[in-house]
Amino acid sequence: TTDMLMDGRHFLLDRDGPEAAGYKAMGVNISDVAAMAATPRFATVAVALPRRDSTAVARGLDAGLRRMAERFSVHIVGGDTNAWDGPLVVSVTLLGETSKSGAATRSGAKVGDVIFVTGPLGGSLFRGRHLRPVPRVAEAAALLAVGPIHAMIDLSDGLSSDLGHILQESGGLGALLDGPAVPIHADAVDQAREDGIPALLHALNDGEDFELCFTVPPATADRLTTAPPLGVPLHRIGVIDAGPGVRLRSADGRTTTVEPGGFDHLRG
Amino acid sequence: TTDMLMDGRHFLLDRDGPEAAGYKAMGVNISDVAAMAATPRFATVAVALPRRDSTAVARGLDAGLRRMAERFSVHIVGGDTNAWDGPLVVSVTLLGETSKSGAATRSGAKVGDVIFVTGPLGGSLFRGRHLRPVPRVAEAAALLAVGPIHAMIDLSDGLSSDLGHILQESGGLGALLDGPAVPIHADAVDQAREDGIPALLHALNDGEDFELCFTVPPATADRLTTAPPLGVPLHRIGVIDAGPGVRLRSADGRTTTVEPGGFDHLRG
Repeated sequence: TTDMLMDGRHFLLDRDGPEAAGYKAMGVNISDVAAMAATPRFATVAVALPRRDSTAVARGLDAGLRRMAERFSVHIVGGDTNAWDGPLVVSVTLLGETSKSGAATRSGAKVGDVIFVTGPLGGSLFRGRHLRPVPRVAEAAALLAVGPIHAMIDLSDGLSSDLGHILQESGGLGALLDGPAVPIHADAVDQAREDGIPALLHALNDGEDFELCFTVPPATADRLTTAPPLGVPLHRIGVIDAGPGVRLRSADGRTTTVEPGGFDHLRG
Repeated sequence: TTDMLMDGRHFLLDRDGPEAAGYKAMGVNISDVAAMAATPRFATVAVALPRRDSTAVARGLDAGLRRMAERFSVHIVGGDTNAWDGPLVVSVTLLGETSKSGAATRSGAKVGDVIFVTGPLGGSLFRGRHLRPVPRVAEAAALLAVGPIHAMIDLSDGLSSDLGHILQESGGLGALLDGPAVPIHADAVDQAREDGIPALLHALNDGEDFELCFTVPPATADRLTTAPPLGVPLHRIGVIDAGPGVRLRSADGRTTTVEPGGFDHLRG
């Protein structure tokens, strides 16, 4: 997998500092490998450093990259360092190793599958949580041990967009979400209080939660619900149907269409 | 290997166009794999597209990347596409496969080794040749078949810098170059006529020739000289000694130190 982060788009160098940028850059890539139910192994890092303070920026970036890499035993095996007059860009490529069960993909969802997420969503920008991804590597491995995962993705763009990727890549299916079951992060509640946008919309659209969203056949879903793997928070949020698109059923029984409203935090 | 190219630094988008940028970006990475005597296999591409004309830039870039990739049977297996207010950045990561002989590295040069390059050097910017690298994948394989390669690198920064990398990574050795034996590209001659800098200095310092520079033990050097592999131009340019640094012996017998004067084309 490869993910490129740019100053002003995925972090603000002046506000967040280079270490946070490096930490996030490695973290989002590890999260991508986790979403494939694989073990992250070897990374390369290419950077374009702004000439101003390029040495200090390089040091901070390196420290952040390594801090996250070490947490998941990832070896940084190569890289490319450039300086230029533009803003900081850092691009990480990460090789992962799958288990005997193979990689989880986005394309295997089936009608009748149950949809889960591994944690509360929304408001990741509010307190800078988007800078501190917690890749769900062990969680994905534990889930795979319980039963087949039909489709999986990590929530970087937001549930409405990322679940949409699964639906599209699985041949154009749909999803019916149970509104009250979508777990809302405390950050989304606080942000809703400030900006007046409902917390549920933050949970659906904000992105950069880096939780896993996955679909499993009903029998596996029941096993996961009855005996969830130790330490893996699970929220059963809906079902895959013939579609099209993502729809949300509210507590009052009304169903509305959810438009993809992905991550555009820092531009907003 | 991973190499990141930035507008204004490694190409000029307005002048060269996005296809040239993509072609070069894939080519310089393939050249890096060739320098390891490996076969390029799988690539990922991460891009930051300028918002202006982002679709046209993406299409051109993609066409250039694929044109070079197909030439070397490289599969582009993943990527990350972003848009931003900054200049075009394209970062390629490439996985290669080594033969049973393993990878050629920069760190195995030994005192007494003979130094070769695979083609004439210098002036790569003069007619835009730096945009059209010809990665020496087959040439490296053919060389490896003749005998052990102690150290190898592709000339991206320039002979003075890149040979310096071999010397440094081989434990701090030196190199004595035979001035008249250094092959000078016609572009360097023409550029010298225009800028007054001696063509030999262009050959030593310009970079982005993407020829191989390698060192082999004397017996292999003799085999290569007597019976060069079919289609591999070879120039025997000097020997590895105890050093330090790179020195150049002129036709008149005088020896001068060569300072690393690497690639800084587009800034100059």
